Amino acid sequence: MGRRSPSVKALVFDVFGTVVDWRGSIIREGMRFGRAKKLNVDWAAFADAWRAGYKPAMARVRSGQLPWTRIDDLHRMILDDILKKFDIRGLSPGEIGEFNRVWHRLRPWPDARRGLQRLKKRFVIGTLSNGNIGLLVNMAKHGGLPWDVVFSAEVFRHYKPDPETYLGSADLLGIAPAELMLVAAHKDDLFAAKACGLRTAFVRRPLEHGPAKRTDLNAERAFDFNVADFNHLADRLCGRVAKKKG
Amino acid sequence: MGRRSPSVKALVFDVFGTVVDWRGSIIREGMRFGRAKKLNVDWAAFADAWRAGYKPAMARVRSGQLPWTRIDDLHRMILDDILKKFDIRGLSPGEIGEFNRVWHRLRPWPDARRGLQRLKKRFVIGTLSNGNIGLLVNMAKHGGLPWDVVFSAEVFRHYKPDPETYLGSADLLGIAPAELMLVAAHKDDLFAAKACGLRTAFVRRPLEHGPAKRTDLNAERAFDFNVADFNHLADRLCGRVAKKKG
Repeated sequence: MGRRSPSVKALVFDVFGTVVDWRGSIIREGMRFGRAKKLNVDWAAFADAWRAGYKPAMARVRSGQLPWTRIDDLHRMILDDILKKFDIRGLSPGEIGEFNRVWHRLRPWPDARRGLQRLKKRFVIGTLSNGNIGLLVNMAKHGGLPWDVVFSAEVFRHYKPDPETYLGSADLLGIAPAELMLVAAHKDDLFAAKACGLRTAFVRRPLEHGPAKRTDLNAERAFDFNVADFNHLADRLCGRVAKKKG
Repeated sequence: MGRRSPSVKALVFDVFGTVVDWRGSIIREGMRFGRAKKLNVDWAAFADAWRAGYKPAMARVRSGQLPWTRIDDLHRMILDDILKKFDIRGLSPGEIGEFNRVWHRLRPWPDARRGLQRLKKRFVIGTLSNGNIGLLVNMAKHGGLPWDVVFSAEVFRHYKPDPETYLGSADLLGIAPAELMLVAAHKDDLFAAKACGLRTAFVRRPLEHGPAKRTDLNAERAFDFNVADFNHLADRLCGRVAKKKG
């Protein structure tokens, strides 16, 4: 683990939780929205409920219960449901639509932009997210994320962790799976990528689910790198110190 | 023509000829390659022959004579053919493969990078090219082209001017066709986009086919803009002068 990988040509990144802080961003926007609309809501619980609806919604697509659906529309279905559960009433369709687009405005973790800028100098960098293209492009504009390319489940018509997403990214870049590295804060995503022959980098994001939730942050020997953040990954992949003399 | 378009949200660009100077780039690399290999070749004629093979090759895919083929592979088929025609012998497969990738290293027109940087501040900017994703990503890296998103015929499994490419780009961005503008130096591309409801900007590239070839550079009323280069387009779309006082 942690050896230098001269053959890696491109890095693709999981986005929700790995690049951006979805929970903190939703809480912040929710609180602002709640003040404006005089709502009394536990926005942390609201954010967690919204995110919790995500995997079951994708499973309905995978099983064929729903046709192919972009994440914007899955987010909206879940939102309509939890607005009821949290007893939030009286919003106009326009207000609900605008709030649903909070996912387009998620904020990068503090290290993300700088780390990506450093990695971009040596590698092709891209997303590999279940989020739809429009969402990812707007998020990058909003947060200043300097992607070279935006890959999404939407292009492959398969969600991660289906192999089509990992192998499809390498194929579209015209490189071998072993020349592509997935960077993610989620071990299941990384193990699936590894099974397809990709290189892997695990990034610890201890606050993804909030300070109270304990998540498995242990390094895994199975991964090529286990790092604290994107700058740490850039240190490892691009070199932190000047080259030794002679 | 030429009115401001506040509703436009994204611009997609034809690439070969519109953003980059394929002919000058191939001539330059050809001359360097020819000196190193002591070849006596008319590289301008070579570049023209390579490009001339492009539309017939795509037509073979469209007609079903060839299965879906990425442009890298079409370029290689044409290259193998014209190497014979120009009596260029004795190259290794590695040398031919490397020379085929000249299309990944095409140089932007002098205004392109700066114009795109200006347009990127106000709009989502992307490619919409028949070139494959890997080619476009490498070209952007090489030439410093700041795309927000890279769309390619490869994603849609249709070449321009098929409607799937124009409508598919708007769909992936989650916007209406009328909110998307195609920027191109080729009128057939622009007319096809317009027929799909896109906005259009014609960019004059008088040197695309070399100084001797006359091309139709006349402005068309059918297009929203007719401009001299990307900076001119940015002047028109983003405003050239400071806002008037109160």
